[in-house]
This record gives sequence, C-alpha cells and structure tokens, in this order.
Amino acid sequence: MNNPMAKLTLAPDRYFGPDPRQKEIALDLYGLVSHLPLVCPHGHVDPRLFADPDYSFGTPTDLLILPDHYLFRMLYSQGISLESLGLPRRDQGPVETDHRKIWQLFADQFYLFRGTPSSLWLNHELHDIFGVQEKLTSASAQRIYDLIAAQLTRPEFRPRALFERFHIEVLCSTDSATDTLEDHRAIRLSGWGGRLIPTFRPDAVINLESPDWRAQIRALSTVSGIEVNGYRAYLQALEQRRAYFKSLGAVATDQASLTPYTEALSAAEAETIFQSGLRGEAAGAEAARFTGHMLMEMARMSIEDGLVMQLHPGSYRNHNPSLCEAFGPDMGADIPIATEYTRNLRPLLNKYGNHPGLTLILFTLDEGAYTRELAPLAGHYPAVKLASPWWFHDSLNGIARFFDQVMETAGLYNTVGFHDDTRAFCSIPARHDVWRRAAANWIAGLVARGLIDQEDAAEMIQDVAYRLAKRAYKL
Amino acid sequence: MNNPMAKLTLAPDRYFGPDPRQKEIALDLYGLVSHLPLVCPHGHVDPRLFADPDYSFGTPTDLLILPDHYLFRMLYSQGISLESLGLPRRDQGPVETDHRKIWQLFADQFYLFRGTPSSLWLNHELHDIFGVQEKLTSASAQRIYDLIAAQLTRPEFRPRALFERFHIEVLCSTDSATDTLEDHRAIRLSGWGGRLIPTFRPDAVINLESPDWRAQIRALSTVSGIEVNGYRAYLQALEQRRAYFKSLGAVATDQASLTPYTEALSAAEAETIFQSGLRGEAAGAEAARFTGHMLMEMARMSIEDGLVMQLHPGSYRNHNPSLCEAFGPDMGADIPIATEYTRNLRPLLNKYGNHPGLTLILFTLDEGAYTRELAPLAGHYPAVKLASPWWFHDSLNGIARFFDQVMETAGLYNTVGFHDDTRAFCSIPARHDVWRRAAANWIAGLVARGLIDQEDAAEMIQDVAYRLAKRAYKL
Amino acid sequence: MNNPMAKLTLAPDRYFGPDPRQKEIALDLYGLVSHLPLVCPHGHVDPRLFADPDYSFGTPTDLLILPDHYLFRMLYSQGISLESLGLPRRDQGPVETDHRKIWQLFADQFYLFRGTPSSLWLNHELHDIFGVQEKLTSASAQRIYDLIAAQLTRPEFRPRALFERFHIEVLCSTDSATDTLEDHRAIRLSGWGGRLIPTFRPDAVINLESPDWRAQIRALSTVSGIEVNGYRAYLQALEQRRAYFKSLGAVATDQASLTPYTEALSAAEAETIFQSGLRGEAAGAEAARFTGHMLMEMARMSIEDGLVMQLHPGSYRNHNPSLCEAFGPDMGADIPIATEYTRNLRPLLNKYGNHPGLTLILFTLDEGAYTRELAPLAGHYPAVKLASPWWFHDSLNGIARFFDQVMETAGLYNTVGFHDDTRAFCSIPARHDVWRRAAANWIAGLVARGLIDQEDAAEMIQDVAYRLAKRAYKL
Repeated sequence: MNNPMAKLTLAPDRYFGPDPRQKEIALDLYGLVSHLPLVCPHGHVDPRLFADPDYSFGTPTDLLILPDHYLFRMLYSQGISLESLGLPRRDQGPVETDHRKIWQLFADQFYLFRGTPSSLWLNHELHDIFGVQEKLTSASAQRIYDLIAAQLTRPEFRPRALFERFHIEVLCSTDSATDTLEDHRAIRLSGWGGRLIPTFRPDAVINLESPDWRAQIRALSTVSGIEVNGYRAYLQALEQRRAYFKSLGAVATDQASLTPYTEALSAAEAETIFQSGLRGEAAGAEAARFTGHMLMEMARMSIEDGLVMQLHPGSYRNHNPSLCEAFGPDMGADIPIATEYTRNLRPLLNKYGNHPGLTLILFTLDEGAYTRELAPLAGHYPAVKLASPWWFHDSLNGIARFFDQVMETAGLYNTVGFHDDTRAFCSIPARHDVWRRAAANWIAGLVARGLIDQEDAAEMIQDVAYRLAKRAYKL
Repeated sequence: MNNPMAKLTLAPDRYFGPDPRQKEIALDLYGLVSHLPLVCPHGHVDPRLFADPDYSFGTPTDLLILPDHYLFRMLYSQGISLESLGLPRRDQGPVETDHRKIWQLFADQFYLFRGTPSSLWLNHELHDIFGVQEKLTSASAQRIYDLIAAQLTRPEFRPRALFERFHIEVLCSTDSATDTLEDHRAIRLSGWGGRLIPTFRPDAVINLESPDWRAQIRALSTVSGIEVNGYRAYLQALEQRRAYFKSLGAVATDQASLTPYTEALSAAEAETIFQSGLRGEAAGAEAARFTGHMLMEMARMSIEDGLVMQLHPGSYRNHNPSLCEAFGPDMGADIPIATEYTRNLRPLLNKYGNHPGLTLILFTLDEGAYTRELAPLAGHYPAVKLASPWWFHDSLNGIARFFDQVMETAGLYNTVGFHDDTRAFCSIPARHDVWRRAAANWIAGLVARGLIDQEDAAEMIQDVAYRLAKRAYKL
Repeated sequence: MNNPMAKLTLAPDRYFGPDPRQKEIALDLYGLVSHLPLVCPHGHVDPRLFADPDYSFGTPTDLLILPDHYLFRMLYSQGISLESLGLPRRDQGPVETDHRKIWQLFADQFYLFRGTPSSLWLNHELHDIFGVQEKLTSASAQRIYDLIAAQLTRPEFRPRALFERFHIEVLCSTDSATDTLEDHRAIRLSGWGGRLIPTFRPDAVINLESPDWRAQIRALSTVSGIEVNGYRAYLQALEQRRAYFKSLGAVATDQASLTPYTEALSAAEAETIFQSGLRGEAAGAEAARFTGHMLMEMARMSIEDGLVMQLHPGSYRNHNPSLCEAFGPDMGADIPIATEYTRNLRPLLNKYGNHPGLTLILFTLDEGAYTRELAPLAGHYPAVKLASPWWFHDSLNGIARFFDQVMETAGLYNTVGFHDDTRAFCSIPARHDVWRRAAANWIAGLVARGLIDQEDAAEMIQDVAYRLAKRAYKL
C-alpha cells in the first residue's frame, strides 16, 4: 500500500487555494510575514524544558507521541489501546515500554491522519526540524526513528536551542494559581535570554465541585501566606497570586468553565457558598453560580492589575470516565457542548464591558456562536476581543471558517492573532505556519475579489500574523 | 501608513470568485440585471426625506455617519466614545459638534472596516454617488469632505432626485402602528411620482413588557378613534390601522420578537392578560404568551386583508443598558440569540401555514437555522418564504452562506429576493449591487459545475435580483 | 420561457470545482471509482420490487413522482395540492388519476428544482437510465413521458434487471421489527443472485407514545411466538426478531428518535413503564426515558449479536397535522430540530462506547453538531462512526460541508461511506454519483493545496466511495 521510498516534501505554495492569480497574491503576502518572530500568548509547554539548559527530549516517541493527545485519541478511536501506545496507567498497570515498537505502531496507523491538521503539523516537524526526507510509513518508520533519535542527542536539539531556532519572541505557559513558578524563576535567574512567562489559571481554586478543591484551597493558603478561611481572604489570596505571577512577567489570566455564565453575587452570598464549599457541601447550581461570580471578580481584578483575561468555555471534560479513571485527564475525551454567550456574559459585560482597562478574550468550541454571538459582541463592547480558533478548530478549514464568519462583523481589529495552544513544543512553528498561510490565503481572496487593495492587504497580514497578538496581550 | 494619493476604484468584476471561466459567466449574468430598477420591500429610511422636495441631507457627517449604527458600533468597540462621534446624549450632555472633526476621526479609523460590508458600501457610495476618486484616509479626509459637502448643496443631491437616480421602483418604510403617516400622505398629495409606501409595525402596541406600552395603547386609541379598553377593541383598532396603512399603499406588516414563539390563547385568556397589561402588571411569561398569540392574530389578519407578514425574531435588544440609558436604542448594542423555529412556529403554521392567502416571510440572525429549520419549513409550507440575510449577515460571506445553505432545500422560489433594510438612504444602491453580484457569482458557480444550464441561469438571476421581491410582496 | 428543443446533457466533469488543475485531479480520482459496485447499507426501497421477477414499475408517474416526497413537498410549498399530484387521500377522496396530466403538471413546475439535488438526480435518471436527450419542460413533457413509458414495458427495465445494470453489490431495506420478511424470503428462495437484505427497525415497538404501540406489541407477540406481557418477554421477543433478521442476512439495526437521549433504567423501572404502556397510560417524559433506555438495550444486543447500530435522531415528524390526517406520514412535512449528542449519548457511550464489539453509526439533521459534537465523539470513542449527510443534507453543498467540517477532527476512517437512503430505486446510481464526484472534488482539493500526496488520494477515494461502507457494515 505504501511506496517504501515515497518522498516527504512541503510545497512552497501549500495550503493556498488553487486559483493561480489568488495564489500569487497569497505567496506575496505570506512572504511579508514568514520570517517574523513567533508570539505565543497561550499554550501548555512545560516550563521545565527551559529551566534546565541540558534538558533532553528523550526518544522520538517521548517527544512526538506521548505528549500529544491529538494523536493518541485518533488511534484510540480506531481500537488501539492507550497501553499499547505507552501511556502510563494510574494504577501502574503494564503498558508498552519499547519506544521503537510504539513508534512503529504509530507509523503503521499514520494513514488515519490523512487530511487532518495533525498530519500537517507532524510532516512539517519531521521535514523542517529533523530533516526527514521520506514519508512516514510502516516501511520507513525505523529509519525515521533512527534519524530523529540521532538528532535529539545533539546540543542544537535542546529546548533552549530550538526556542531560538524557532524564532520565538515570547512563549506563555499556563500555570495553576497555586504554582510557585520555580521553573520560571530558575529561567529568569539563569540569565538565558528566552522570554518565557507564566499565565494565571485559577480553575482549580474556583471550581467548588472539583473533589480536589479543598486541597487546592489549602495549597493556596500555603503559597500565598494568607489563611484562606473565608471569602474575603480567598479574594486577597487570589490577588496576591496574580501579583506574584505578574512579578514573573505574566500578562494574562485564563479560565475554563463549562459555560460562560456570569452573575454578581453579594459578598454575603459568596461567603455562604464559599463556606459551604469549605465544608465539602457545595452543590451543582451553587457551584455554577460561584464560578459565574468569580468570572466577574476576575474581570474586576483584571481592570485593577491590567492582566488580560482569557475565557475558554464549552468543553465537557472527561466525557469517558473509565478512561479518565485508568489514565487521568487530557486523554482526548473532552467533548464540546453548545455554548451561549449573549445572555450568559451580559452581567459581566454590563458591569465591565465598557471599561477601557479590560481585555476579555473569548474562545469557543461552538462555531455556531461565531456569526450569531461572538462577532456581534466583539463588534460592540470595547472589552471583548475574539481568540483564534481553538483546539479542534485550529485547522485549515477551521481557520477559514473563522475568517469568513467572524471578520465581516467583528472586524479584524477586534481579533487578537494566533494562539498555538499546544503541549507539543516542536509543533509550534508548524502551527503558526498554518495560521499565516491560511491568513495570507484569506486576505489574497479579499484582494482578488476587489474588497481591499494591496496596501490594506500588506497591513492586514502583518497585523494578523504578528502585531495583533502583541498589542492585545501587551507583549 | 496610508499613501496620501491612493486611488479609490471599483473593479467591474468585483466580488466574483477568482476562477476566470466562472467569472466570465458571472459577469454575463450580472449584465442581465445591473440596470434593473431597485425593489426595496423592507427598510428604515425616514419618509420625511421625501415629504419635503427641498429636504437637504446636511453635512457629509449628517448623511454618512450619524444615521449608521453599523459604523459607530465598530468605532465604539475600539474605545472611541459616541460623544466624540457627535451622537446626541439623552441628557443633553456635551458631544462633539464639529462635523469636520468627526469626519476626520472616522477617516483616521476607517482601516477598522477593512474587509467588512460597511467599507464596500461606503466606498461604493463615495465613488458612484459623489465621484470620489481617492481612498478615504487620514490624509484625504478633508478633501473628500469638501467634495461631498459641495455636491450636497446641488439640487441633484436632494433625496427625491437621488431616489430617481438610484432607479428605485418602490421603497417601503417601517412605521409604528400609531403613526399617522403624515409624511406618506404629504408625498402622495405632492404629486411626486416616487413610490414610497409604509409598512405596519405593531411591536410597540403588542409588547406588554415595554415600559411605554400603556402610552402606546392610549396613542392607538387616539389615532384609531376606537377606545382601546379591552382585547376586542384592541383587535378592532389594529385592524383599523392596518386598513389605514393599506389605504396609503402598504403591502406588508413587520414584527420583531425575541423568539418566534406562537400560541393560540382563548379570547378570555387574551382579555385577562390584556387587562393585566392595562394595569401595568403583565409579567414575563404572560407577556411572551401574549406576543405569541398576537403573532397568530396578525397571521389571521393577513389572510383577511392580504398584507404580507414579515417576522424578525432573535435580536436581544439593548444588550448594553448603560449605553442605552445614555444614547437610546439602535446604538449597535443589539446582539443575536439562538432561535428555534420548528417548534415555536408550529401552532401558527398548523392553523394558517397551509392557507393560500398567507405569505409569512421569515428572517433570522441565527444562521444555524438555515439548513436545519428554515429551508425545510419553506420547502414544505405554502405560506412560508425566506427573507434574504438580515443585518450582520447582509454581507458577501453571509449572502454566499445563504445561497449555499438555503437554496438546495428550500428552492430559489421559496425565497423573496433582497431586503436592503437600511436607514442609510445612500447605501441602497451599494447594497443591491452586492446582492446582485453575489447572486451572479452563486449562479455562475452552478453553471460552471454543470448543475444548471445558461437558460436556467438567465431566469434565476432575474428572479433573484428583481422578480421574486415584486411577486412576494405583490408590488 | 423554455426553448422546446433544449438539450439534456451531463457534463463528464460535472460537480467539480472550476479550477482547471484541481478539476483534472478530481477527474483522475473519480476515474478510479466510477465503475466500482454500489454498496447501499441504508435505504427504503420496497423489497417487493425484487420478490416478483416480473414486477413492473407502472407509469413514469408511478416510478418517478409518487414515491418521492422530495419532489411533491416542493410543489406543495408552491401551492400545488397533493390531490392534483395523485397522492392518495386516506379518506379515499378524489385525487387526480390521469398520470399524463400529473406528469405535465410536474414538468411545468420543474423549474422550481433549479440547483436542487432533486434536479440533479432526476436529470441523471432521465439521461442515463432512460436515454432522454432533451430537457424536461412543459413542451417536452409528453414526449419524455412516452419515451419512459415505452422503456418501462421492456424486460431490461424490470427491477431485477436494473439492480444488475446499476451494479448494486448489496441493497439493504428497512423493515419493521414485526415484519415477517416474506419478500426477503421469497427473493432468497427464488435463486436470484441479487443481494437484498433487511434492516431491523424497532421504532414502532419502542415508542410508547405511538397510538399504534399496543397493536404493534400484539404483532410482536404473534411474529415472535413469545407472549409479550412484560418487559422481560419484550426483550426476549426483540432478541428473537433480531436473530430472525440476521438469519435473512441483516447486518444492521436502525432507530429514529426525536432526540439521542439515553438513560439506563433499572429492570424494575423499565417494567413499570412498560406496564404503564400496556395500559395505554405511558406519558411524555416516561416514554422518552423508555426510548432512551431502549437505545442502551439495543447497544447491548448489538454487542451480543454483532448487528451494527444506526441512529437517526432529530426529525420532528408530521409537523403539519392536517396534511398527515389527509395523506398520512412521509409527505415532506418532517422538520429537523436542534440535536444535542454530547450529553445525551454519554450514558450509552460510557457503558458501551469503549467496547470493540459495538459500531454505532450516528446520523444528524443538525449540521451544527458536525464540528462541535459529532466529529469529536467519533474521533475518540471506538464504537462511534459518522454517517454520510442525511436527507436534506444529501446534496452537493451538504456533502461538501460534511467533508470540510467532519474530516479534520473525526478523520476519514471514523466515517462509513455513503448511504443513499432512498425510496426511489432509480435514483440510487445518481445519488452515488453525486457522492463520488463530491468526494473526488474534496480529495482533489487536498492534493491541490499540498495536504496529501497522490498516493494517499488514490487510497482515500476508494475508501470513501466503496471500502468504508463494506467495512463498517461488515458487508
């Protein structure tokens, strides 16, 4: 089925529409931005990679497969067990440990990714980062493994070296509110010039329904030095942590909630629910109201301390409990739900949405909200900006839909450029490349159809590829 | 950033897809309709413009910026105050009054509209109506202001003259049920040949929750000469007003409701709720049921008097109360919500949807309903027809989605052509031009892919650009 | 309006995008599959057609109009009565019986279908099956009627002959759980080589709210030989029927429910509701819970007996009760509703979704669920596969949206090829042709934009056109 010597090539005009004239414009536009630095305001790369200057990525399997739930969810959906892919079981049960064997299994199944963003990213990484010249197939798997493994032993393939080679201007990690950010401090102290900054993610101390919440509150007391025995101390501790994150360079916060429901509780109500949480008694609706209230409090704090506020609603986490029990979260079993923004965000926006000091960046997994709710909201409220396509929608078609459905109503300048949002460090250049090419293709379409002139196009491609992210996140 | 002498040009093949063969077909089709008169069955142009033969539009800012909430909402979203744009505050507080300064501010920010329909419309107006040859930028702003201001002093730029120059066959305004239509009567009496007709919009006398409702009911009593002290008199007064509107040429009614919920109340229930409204006590669910009932009553009246029934659901009005308090409604702060048609309209359609005498034209701000609900409903019920894309969706991509998502299931002949739906009189030709070009492009795509032949294409473009609107609205 | 001698032609490159290079690739890909046999895993062709070797289709009107609610719903929406189209009334009231007159009426109105899938299918049938060379118009109607009528008298136009000419490898009918499958048995006994197999559809014995349910349960007792007087006997009878269907070749079951709600009832709860149904007292929520429980039971049985499970949710049946009363169901008055899968299917998927023995094929009438819910579910759960676009969405644009919105996240290999899903036997080749061409066009777009290579493209087109359906349905 696979030609054993099939070549792997990346066409210089890849991802552009086929019309020759539009493609020429797209290539010109892409040329204006292909060498600009990468601004990465939201992601999940582990800062540990950069704290130790000699950090090694391990095997090709360690680097490219194990941290990437985009990959193993697809194999799982085709009946391949996570054990056979070497994912560690919570119960320490036996899993495959032969990384060559896992790599071979993955290569055997790589045809499953035909036409998916994962295949674009991986082929880009193999070709541009590791110099792989042949297509990943059953036949080539071990040769490619050898080549990558050899590269990974070289100093040029340490994380810091790649960070520089990737031309990353700034990389934001995502960190729990109770994180002491030791790795971030170590990076700062090391004198290394790479800019890696934390993002304040308070989900674990806000979600009263989490079984772990009380332990998180104790951790919050410890790290903040404030005894969190009530709602007022809780707010103080959060504000203290935000200040600490800011002192290490943070420019933003991030929250994930099932819905974007917001509601302003009175201090007394908030205290009552908080105390109920401390007793382990906070129930469904109560917990949801508290989360909605804390979204508003985070907006208030953002106005006070200037941190940009990101909101990621609409993911039903751990949809598959038996898998979660065996392997933990983030195994590809988070499934989106329909998400309503117009009514849910109204309390927050009515109170803070007209304030010049707030930037609220909205993400969505429900593309139905693009034209109906998100673009009109962003096209009206000064505080609201729209994020690039998130997760499943960070794909060529997903990005094209975003441009086509959002820009006419929201306007380009109410969006904020690209978020690579990845755990897979080596996929960052590939992801930005897809974004920049898709943007060039979109803008070229506007030129080819006479909607804008070349001058506007040149500004727009630089905005969407680089400037908007810097401006929105104050980077 | 802006080349001070950048030219403003409108390409003859603008808005068409880039493929040369398809573009050639599109140009041919567009040529069949580009000179047809404009039929405008739904809009918000003030009839006062045509009542006085010497009406002057005022300054370029009066004409092009102040009546257009599409424009100032975008500037507001970028932190520019409505005061600085000269929008009058309800409290008479100070706002900018220098129209040149407002124009300059707008020109400085015009880059925000890159790729939006507003920029297409405005460039078309500047170029084709006012003869502007250079791009609107900070540098050209005052020159362009001068040129437009000079034109506006000429008799050819009076509203009636432009009405004729625009080749408008009929223009429908939207008028409150309590409006005495003095301007419409004056136009009729003046002997001017332009056809401007009213549309009956009863929202203010139907929505029991409006704080203004009781005042509206008193106004209804006054204008109808029927004392509206109960439900039966209320219906009689509405029927009387419909007849009055019809006597001045009206062909249609229009209603906006938060949802398309319908329900037939008994006369006794309707009376009870109506009386509760008269006492100022009508509550949320009660008011919603009454609105749903009145949708059914309006359908009944339409069958009796032949007025076409338009329904505009799904806009959450005045989402931003502090803005509404300061400046009033229609400031760009109306945000769509998800809208359900299948179940909500069932009572109305079961009772009246098979009747040959009813035409119910459905609008939507929720594009998700196109393929799921609206096209199947229109493709079945004799009464149901689908309106062109509304508001945020009246854009090149919005129109393309409408054609792609509606036509296969509903069929072209269950749609009703174009609604420009604007307050901005001078944007009417530009809006019809976008529609006609987008339609030509869509139909050319059908020819190029072998779905229809040239003969069908020639019929379809004339239908969609001109005939369907005349037929549906009996114009 | 119609040129009386207008020709009917089918362009060899029809349905492909206009770009010449992409079209060339699409033609090559289409050439790889255009002659592959047709696999038809889901449809509504009456098995009676094949039980009698001399079965005749009757008149052109009998064959092409009367069984096709896609056609008469459109005419009905334009005010043409079903009586004038010859649809039989339940009350035996008078309807048109002159089939030539009906055909003429249809031809007069055939312009209503411009750009719709019905026109593509019908033109394909006329041209390729019946050799019609001129366009169907008012002028040509009777000539075309004559030509088809003459063909239908010939032995080559008996159903079995056409089955072979159409190159159908297997055709699945849809059969009630209480059907004794006499026609299927007769076909087996006849020695004819065509593979026609039943599908087990238990809706009528599961939906407690159906007025017919108790009669259906009595029928179930009769055909199974098990007295269905309680929940346990009910399950046994269903299992017995599934085994019977399997013995006649069935590979799948099918269920339609208003929503995909699932819930595991205890045996005692199920018994209580079942008994309440037997007394004719099962109410709305109770009936819905029972349906949700039975979806889970059907999944369990599928794991036990290996039958593939199909689920068709989200159609609001018989939306127009007066029409249903006059003419019965399936008259084009079924309207989709918004459909939620993530939460509704969770109980079923948590219990059975990881099981290697289950294949659950999900259909939708709500395209909003493609990217938001269905693709992520299919891209994770081993049991979940996605069906091709259903009903209104089985159209060129609908198929394009499916490919663009589903494949990046679900991956091609979590989909199952094409379902023609038709009552109109002669439309089967046309429907597969649209699918195969649309697939070739989609894959050609991936090649043209450098997302996949030619080798992958060749595999993918064969998978999507032929192999996936065979594999998923174990055919």
